[in-house]
Amino acid sequence: MNSLQALWAAGSIAVIGATERPGAMGRLPIEYLQKYGYQGFIAPVNPKGGQVLGLPVFSSMASIGRAVDLALVMVPAAAVLEAVTDCAQAGTSVCIVMSSGFAETGANGAAAQDELVRVSRAHGMRLVGPNCIGAVGGPARVLATFSPVFSSTATPIPDGNIALVSQSGALGFGALSLGIERGVPIGIAVTTGNEADVTALDVAVQLVNDPSVDAVLMYIESLGDIGALVGAAELKPIAVVKAGRSEAGARAAASHTGALASADKVVDSALRQAGIARVADLDALLDAGALFATGARMPGSGIGIVTTSGGSGILAADSIAACGMQLAQLEAATIADLTAVVPSYGNATNPVDVTAAVMAEPGLFEQCVDRLAADPSVDAIVACFAVLVGADVTRIARALGAVRTRTGLPVVAVRTGAASLAPEGAAVLAANGVPVYPTPERAVAALQALHATSLRRTRAVLAGPLAQVPAAGASEKQLKQIFAAAGLPVPESVLVSSVDEAVAAVPKVGGVAVLKAVAPGLLHKSDVGGVVLGVTAENVADVFTHLAALGGQVLVERFVQGGVEVIVGINPSALGSVLTVGVGGVLTEIVADTAVRMLPVDEIDVREMIAETALTPMLAGVRGATPSDIDALVRVVVRLADCTREWPTGFELDLNPIAVLSDGCWILDAMYVNAKDGNLLQHAGGH
Amino acid sequence: MNSLQALWAAGSIAVIGATERPGAMGRLPIEYLQKYGYQGFIAPVNPKGGQVLGLPVFSSMASIGRAVDLALVMVPAAAVLEAVTDCAQAGTSVCIVMSSGFAETGANGAAAQDELVRVSRAHGMRLVGPNCIGAVGGPARVLATFSPVFSSTATPIPDGNIALVSQSGALGFGALSLGIERGVPIGIAVTTGNEADVTALDVAVQLVNDPSVDAVLMYIESLGDIGALVGAAELKPIAVVKAGRSEAGARAAASHTGALASADKVVDSALRQAGIARVADLDALLDAGALFATGARMPGSGIGIVTTSGGSGILAADSIAACGMQLAQLEAATIADLTAVVPSYGNATNPVDVTAAVMAEPGLFEQCVDRLAADPSVDAIVACFAVLVGADVTRIARALGAVRTRTGLPVVAVRTGAASLAPEGAAVLAANGVPVYPTPERAVAALQALHATSLRRTRAVLAGPLAQVPAAGASEKQLKQIFAAAGLPVPESVLVSSVDEAVAAVPKVGGVAVLKAVAPGLLHKSDVGGVVLGVTAENVADVFTHLAALGGQVLVERFVQGGVEVIVGINPSALGSVLTVGVGGVLTEIVADTAVRMLPVDEIDVREMIAETALTPMLAGVRGATPSDIDALVRVVVRLADCTREWPTGFELDLNPIAVLSDGCWILDAMYVNAKDGNLLQHAGGH
Repeated sequence: MNSLQALWAAGSIAVIGATERPGAMGRLPIEYLQKYGYQGFIAPVNPKGGQVLGLPVFSSMASIGRAVDLALVMVPAAAVLEAVTDCAQAGTSVCIVMSSGFAETGANGAAAQDELVRVSRAHGMRLVGPNCIGAVGGPARVLATFSPVFSSTATPIPDGNIALVSQSGALGFGALSLGIERGVPIGIAVTTGNEADVTALDVAVQLVNDPSVDAVLMYIESLGDIGALVGAAELKPIAVVKAGRSEAGARAAASHTGALASADKVVDSALRQAGIARVADLDALLDAGALFATGARMPGSGIGIVTTSGGSGILAADSIAACGMQLAQLEAATIADLTAVVPSYGNATNPVDVTAAVMAEPGLFEQCVDRLAADPSVDAIVACFAVLVGADVTRIARALGAVRTRTGLPVVAVRTGAASLAPEGAAVLAANGVPVYPTPERAVAALQALHATSLRRTRAVLAGPLAQVPAAGASEKQLKQIFAAAGLPVPESVLVSSVDEAVAAVPKVGGVAVLKAVAPGLLHKSDVGGVVLGVTAENVADVFTHLAALGGQVLVERFVQGGVEVIVGINPSALGSVLTVGVGGVLTEIVADTAVRMLPVDEIDVREMIAETALTPMLAGVRGATPSDIDALVRVVVRLADCTREWPTGFELDLNPIAVLSDGCWILDAMYVNAKDGNLLQHAGGH
Repeated sequence: MNSLQALWAAGSIAVIGATERPGAMGRLPIEYLQKYGYQGFIAPVNPKGGQVLGLPVFSSMASIGRAVDLALVMVPAAAVLEAVTDCAQAGTSVCIVMSSGFAETGANGAAAQDELVRVSRAHGMRLVGPNCIGAVGGPARVLATFSPVFSSTATPIPDGNIALVSQSGALGFGALSLGIERGVPIGIAVTTGNEADVTALDVAVQLVNDPSVDAVLMYIESLGDIGALVGAAELKPIAVVKAGRSEAGARAAASHTGALASADKVVDSALRQAGIARVADLDALLDAGALFATGARMPGSGIGIVTTSGGSGILAADSIAACGMQLAQLEAATIADLTAVVPSYGNATNPVDVTAAVMAEPGLFEQCVDRLAADPSVDAIVACFAVLVGADVTRIARALGAVRTRTGLPVVAVRTGAASLAPEGAAVLAANGVPVYPTPERAVAALQALHATSLRRTRAVLAGPLAQVPAAGASEKQLKQIFAAAGLPVPESVLVSSVDEAVAAVPKVGGVAVLKAVAPGLLHKSDVGGVVLGVTAENVADVFTHLAALGGQVLVERFVQGGVEVIVGINPSALGSVLTVGVGGVLTEIVADTAVRMLPVDEIDVREMIAETALTPMLAGVRGATPSDIDALVRVVVRLADCTREWPTGFELDLNPIAVLSDGCWILDAMYVNAKDGNLLQHAGGH
């Protein structure tokens, strides 16, 4: 058994801190294991000995005389290290420390927690927690938890092809409980608490590789090595609630692009790029799980709606637009066929409204669903029947199931009414692979999650020549030389140290120049008057003298006039390097309109980024202005991301502005800082 | 009885089209009325006579021999006019036409529908529908509907202080059914269908004036005379699901500001200004209803969170930020007191995390809620207890109820777990005025709805001098004269017809001028080179000659240089005149960043509008630029809204740009069109 698999499939379980006392936490897992019929070996452990619930108590892990798959540590914080050491030495595969009192309490607790990890790793044991509520593997009846959810006889054994992983213990078991109530087939649930060793991501990766699991639902507060999850998401659908959105603003990075690329925006993009669905809340997470459980996939985004209520159809259409999916544009033949059967007071275009006439003619709904499913623009079907009751629901459920089975299309039902009105409805729908939701919005959100996990795209492999890594404190001129050598467009320039050199340089850069002061540590040239535009032979001597007085050399550069100003940046984040593309120049701070992506990116990504921002209308040319060379910009961004791909991590690069003209584009300013070099980019300069 | 009250409190009900045939729509209302114990007089009407469910059938309304409060018309479309006429002539108060086949089928149906209204109004009868599913008044047991919801014995009689109004019949009764299942105390539900006469808004206004109703929930597809609802919303909370968001873009108005002020944005603003909560979906509508039913109000926006699960607390905090409310900033004394009781591995600041320790020490939760409620920054409490079970829930429920009663603060509970784990929990909470939600997000959304309905603000009454109404086709010069006379700042200008006049005018306007071509029908001056900036004595003759060639006179105006360019517009909408304020000048189309409000507005509104847009950083001065005179802009916008308040409706006014300088601001361009004058403003010009 792969060691993490022990969390839901252990053949032997030890409970350290076991006690007979009713209601005590150390009794609950044994009570639950017995109540739910666990077939494996249970070893209560307590130095006091005796019996717990009829089982003999071992005085220590060593005294069991065999290695166990899974050990639950339920002793006070002060006794945890000894217990973990005992487990590790006895050859335990996985140890869940449920006890609190570690990293969540401060530095001392964190040090104690580190020690647990050290001991575990020394013996090759995996450690879950501390400060968690354990795990449940319903199919194997592994109830390795003290969650009160299983104290009630009303809670059935978890069963199904969906797995749930939660950093939060209470929320995880709460979501499991809610999911069971709502008929979401969750068969495995794992909570990871402080994640001293095993993270929710580790567990998700293991779950995806388990043949009994068809999809994974996650609640996470931190997102570590998303790389591992990318591979997992290619195998099976994963949906995530990521908490902590509102703290995002507080973690603004140092440079412009860092500040604009808020951490939460980066999380959004990282998950989307990985093909993982980020959902709004626990309702949406469970709703997605119900749909994932049917095995449906949805690479297209066209949705057909059939409804008995005009209102439900409108709400569904609103949601589809809000989610960025498409109300399927039906073919004329489809509409003609629908017109023949839909009442005149209904609607034969999408959303198809069969009206309450369906009460008198139950076959109407089925005919319309069938016809809609045959239209090539339809990638999924939303069927809304507001408050039909009893046998009508059963009949429609069967029809929807038949379409689901025959066509393979995802089919979701919206039934806005009490469950008691059609007690068998949900069961018949579920048995036919059709999840049912109370509102159109929730049904559409579930489809959006499915669609997000169904998008697969082969990325172009970029492996052009690498750019040289800038030295610490590299000047604008040095950066531009590096980029020019990497094939990126920078205006020609000459670094001058005297009036004579300056005068001689102007004709070399085309007769009209921009002059910039170059002095060590001078990041904000513009703010101190260190940049002068449109310099010609007439005034170059005066301008040079003025700039040289700022304490260094002067860069004489070809003056690029006009164009749309774009900011392009690469910044570090907890998830890896982030590319930012947005409205640049003086508008950078006013408009704050940027798109972000985790690197690597390809041309399609960059075009999508531009499309997400106001750059699209600006580059297209406002009010009859000449369109800008968007292809040149795309080439530059892709090349930039490519040529810096092996630069040491942690650097911040800020190109602002890149001027996009009607023919080509130019990198007009560049700044580079690597925190490891000892200073941070505070603020981008620009011209 | 006020006539619309008959919908939920009729003392006598006629059913036209009554029949004994089981399952027939004409039988269902009589079946329901009898089953649910209606105490009033029921009159089945059918020319065929006989009996229905033991009641004698009348051959016509006239043959009943008395006027009834409420008549239900359930005959085929072709027979409806005769039935309605019969009702009207017999002195019926309200007639509900449930039959379909009217305006929803096209022009012929619309004409037939108009005829129904004509007949009804001629006799002072109110008409509900056609094409609706009727109404229910639970307290009076008025089951005036054929909805299948009441065919099930599982549906209890609707009971409670919340009323529901829905344009959609199926969705309305579906929401009622769902609400009953979720314990939302809906006592009255009315569906309005085609709204030939009575609208959902009419019904809402009547419901607000009913002493048995404490709040109104609405599903609407169109929003007519919002004025009536404004007064109603001042009396009792109203929450609305407004469908049709996604069609908003298609109804773009003709001018700039109209196009930017999308219809849905206007709906949003109109509802917010009226103190009506616009909620996301039917879940949120019912969730708001559960909170409204407790009678709580929430003028402040500070929320205190107590949680047994750190995860729930983070999610609640995220939602509070996303909703624009505040995580209450606790006083030091509160935090000190909480620190004394919260475990070290919990959190004594907001969100207060008492952890699973509450399982061992149930009083902990109550202590924290009590202490939190005493903090002056706390305007409402969110209490999250993920999966506590049984008696723990009951105890916490009582404690929350006590705080709710003693302090009057809104208190909402989040219980993420199956109802079966604490079967009595929801009931105890409800009995104590504490609604319970499955997720933190839904609890916070309900508080947001309550807060939106609790904001009351006395508006400053504006009644300064009126501006003269512009003539059809008024020129820029004429408009500017009108505004100058109304006390608004326009640069001085001279209209000239010859080179000599032009030369003489330049010194009169300060020596540097902008010259503009003035020709009939020339709206897009800039596009044809009709505007020249920075004209001096040196080149005024040449410029005049060039502009005069465009076919008219030339305006010589003081040249206002620099400043932040703002667009201000007034446009008509279905809900009344809309004010737009946003980023103007050349950025108008690029940034598309505007705020809208229904008129009238006061200074506070205008400051809020500016705060909603990028104008705030722009006016504050980007990167050390001099701040602009925001007060001057606010004065101009308020004065503009005031002085045009009695202009005939339907006009479009576009001031773009208004240049806001460091000292004062200037209206640099103005356009006015009234559709009634026969032309539409296609496109704003600007300089």
